[in-house]
Amino acid sequence: MLAQLLLDDDVRLVALRGGLGAVPGIRLAGVHAGIKPRKRDLALAVFDLPQVCAAAVTTNEIKAAPVLLSAAHLEASGGTMRAFVCNSGCANACTGERGDRDAAATARQAAALLGLAPAEVVVASTGVIGVPLPMDRVQRGLERAVAQLETGGKAGNDAAEAIMTTDRVPKLAAYSFYVHEKKYVVGGIAKGSGMIAPNMATMLAFIATDLPLAREELQRELLASVDESFNMISVDGDMSTNDAVYAFAPAGAAEAPPIAFSRALRQVCLDLAHAMVDDGEGATKTLTMHVTGARDVGQARTIARAVINSNLVKTALYGEDPNWGRIIAAAGSVKAGLDPQSWSLLLNGKTWVEPGAIEALTEAEAYRELELHEITIELRLGQGEARATGWGCDLSKDYVRINASYRT
Amino acid sequence: MLAQLLLDDDVRLVALRGGLGAVPGIRLAGVHAGIKPRKRDLALAVFDLPQVCAAAVTTNEIKAAPVLLSAAHLEASGGTMRAFVCNSGCANACTGERGDRDAAATARQAAALLGLAPAEVVVASTGVIGVPLPMDRVQRGLERAVAQLETGGKAGNDAAEAIMTTDRVPKLAAYSFYVHEKKYVVGGIAKGSGMIAPNMATMLAFIATDLPLAREELQRELLASVDESFNMISVDGDMSTNDAVYAFAPAGAAEAPPIAFSRALRQVCLDLAHAMVDDGEGATKTLTMHVTGARDVGQARTIARAVINSNLVKTALYGEDPNWGRIIAAAGSVKAGLDPQSWSLLLNGKTWVEPGAIEALTEAEAYRELELHEITIELRLGQGEARATGWGCDLSKDYVRINASYRT
Repeated sequence: MLAQLLLDDDVRLVALRGGLGAVPGIRLAGVHAGIKPRKRDLALAVFDLPQVCAAAVTTNEIKAAPVLLSAAHLEASGGTMRAFVCNSGCANACTGERGDRDAAATARQAAALLGLAPAEVVVASTGVIGVPLPMDRVQRGLERAVAQLETGGKAGNDAAEAIMTTDRVPKLAAYSFYVHEKKYVVGGIAKGSGMIAPNMATMLAFIATDLPLAREELQRELLASVDESFNMISVDGDMSTNDAVYAFAPAGAAEAPPIAFSRALRQVCLDLAHAMVDDGEGATKTLTMHVTGARDVGQARTIARAVINSNLVKTALYGEDPNWGRIIAAAGSVKAGLDPQSWSLLLNGKTWVEPGAIEALTEAEAYRELELHEITIELRLGQGEARATGWGCDLSKDYVRINASYRT
Repeated sequence: MLAQLLLDDDVRLVALRGGLGAVPGIRLAGVHAGIKPRKRDLALAVFDLPQVCAAAVTTNEIKAAPVLLSAAHLEASGGTMRAFVCNSGCANACTGERGDRDAAATARQAAALLGLAPAEVVVASTGVIGVPLPMDRVQRGLERAVAQLETGGKAGNDAAEAIMTTDRVPKLAAYSFYVHEKKYVVGGIAKGSGMIAPNMATMLAFIATDLPLAREELQRELLASVDESFNMISVDGDMSTNDAVYAFAPAGAAEAPPIAFSRALRQVCLDLAHAMVDDGEGATKTLTMHVTGARDVGQARTIARAVINSNLVKTALYGEDPNWGRIIAAAGSVKAGLDPQSWSLLLNGKTWVEPGAIEALTEAEAYRELELHEITIELRLGQGEARATGWGCDLSKDYVRINASYRT
């Protein structure tokens, strides 16, 4: 596991099972609506209390109908929501006016079944682009989901399964934390598998807490956590038509959230992001890429992303080839101010290449390190104190097989 | 073949064999120096007349020693050169101070053998990063090359072979053209194979003409041609440590080059760029991506590059999957101003998707088109009159195999 529990003198996080199902005040279901041939393909979540909702969505100019509809609903309701629906098997993207009508009908049908206003429902979709939603099946699936709404981990797991596409495993994370000796929970579910960027495979995450928050605070906390987690496996601006992260919390006072909440939210985002990398399409290895000694966090993030997104680095990792030149070439390609004289590399914590491009590990020694399943590389820039971490996986023949035959 | 002869009422280009060997006034050799186990690995070219030299080199912050040395030589000599040396099998990149010394020694040894000043020699290298040049072998190879210098197509072919790395075929192009009823030639050789960007596999090209030109004019013409050819298979800013295109011409008067030269140079660059795409590492299909109806050329180029560089588009092409959503998602990801309402797609000249995301070809019809080896896609933006074309290839299991085992 890439993820690890944060340890801090002041903040204790305890990992919980069930993802969203671990958060009090949410009823969930994940059912088979028939959009996909056999598997669960429709998730529904209903909150007991009105929720403020924060969102981080794709910057792609082509946004799927549900992304646009949910943005309009957040606008219309002032960010107060009561439910979300997410289907897999069909992205409802590039589906023209019909796509807009279908997304709106999904919200309307869910709202009618739940006694809510349509604008209180967030809608999301993932799957093939350019194919319309089978609305009769969505309707029947919603009826089935409403009938099965439950609290707890089993329902959280069903919901996580229902949003999967090429994912091999459902992705859930939840942590409890204390504020003034009262226990709260942050939990989430996500879908997406490793080769996220620059490949525009969709990633979706739904996160909730029972700690009351103001919408602006939740939004700020969400963006900060997304920048350190999902955006470090997925490059800004290379997002799919459907990418979205939604976070929900009971409406609360406009005051700064406690640090324990920030840590718990970040840990949920990190766990879900790591789960995507671990589940990389065809991946056989994971890469944790630290960039340290940077002038600033922006420089560190840009370079870390360049390395984890390089096809040549990914294929070298797959081939267990200690070709550190590809790492440096990738780091230099983004023109973030890499100093050719001062960089150095560490492989699994061992000095690999010293400043001046002097190899400290023999090729045989480096090769042995690359035989491991989990590889950690640190690129020290030698320019300052800032750092960032990105997470990636290798590029295998199976990646090509999976993506060549996604539809046909 | 993707390349085609330009037809124009005013300009007649005639394709010639032999690449650089077709250009009068150049002696060439391509020998086995022993940097690689068996194949030719050292090319040498010597010009009868002093040449002005134009260059377009990598923007990567990590530049290989020969790139930096050649830039210094162009500076020192005021752009007047007499020879170039290029080895394969070793990039002499990330080789520290020793790399700088080795690149300088290569120029010095070649100059000594040819009776030139070292600053009159352009040096280039391609191959593995981080490994020093075996200078004893370079020296012996240079001696062998000087002894074998010849004019003509056989020597041009030998030189083209000697700069290959993962290339399956040598890449040569040459055209004759007329200026005031006198015949001239532009010819070139290149190396590089298809999956250039964002993968930073090195591309190198050496181009020459016997038409006298001023250095500034040659530089301007070269950059314009590179923008339409090599840069449309390779994204700016995602170049390798060693990428370079050098163009040579006898020193001439500072006047605008005749249009026939511009066309011939552009055609040589296009042919060499297309040869790289055709020779894509593991490629089974080629893609010609036209973006038309753009507001300006910059928009068209940005979007064309985004599509040809998308791993999801490449794998869909490999799988013959008519998944046009991936094309649109890639086009929208670069935020170049794609209008979601006005775009349309053509596949091999047939209307594929009409504005509003309405499919005009059935999935079966589109699938039949994708069975061809050469695929042409046109994305009409519906915003203006500008256009650009990019060339790519598919991403196959063989690409992964080749790049996972490049060194080990």
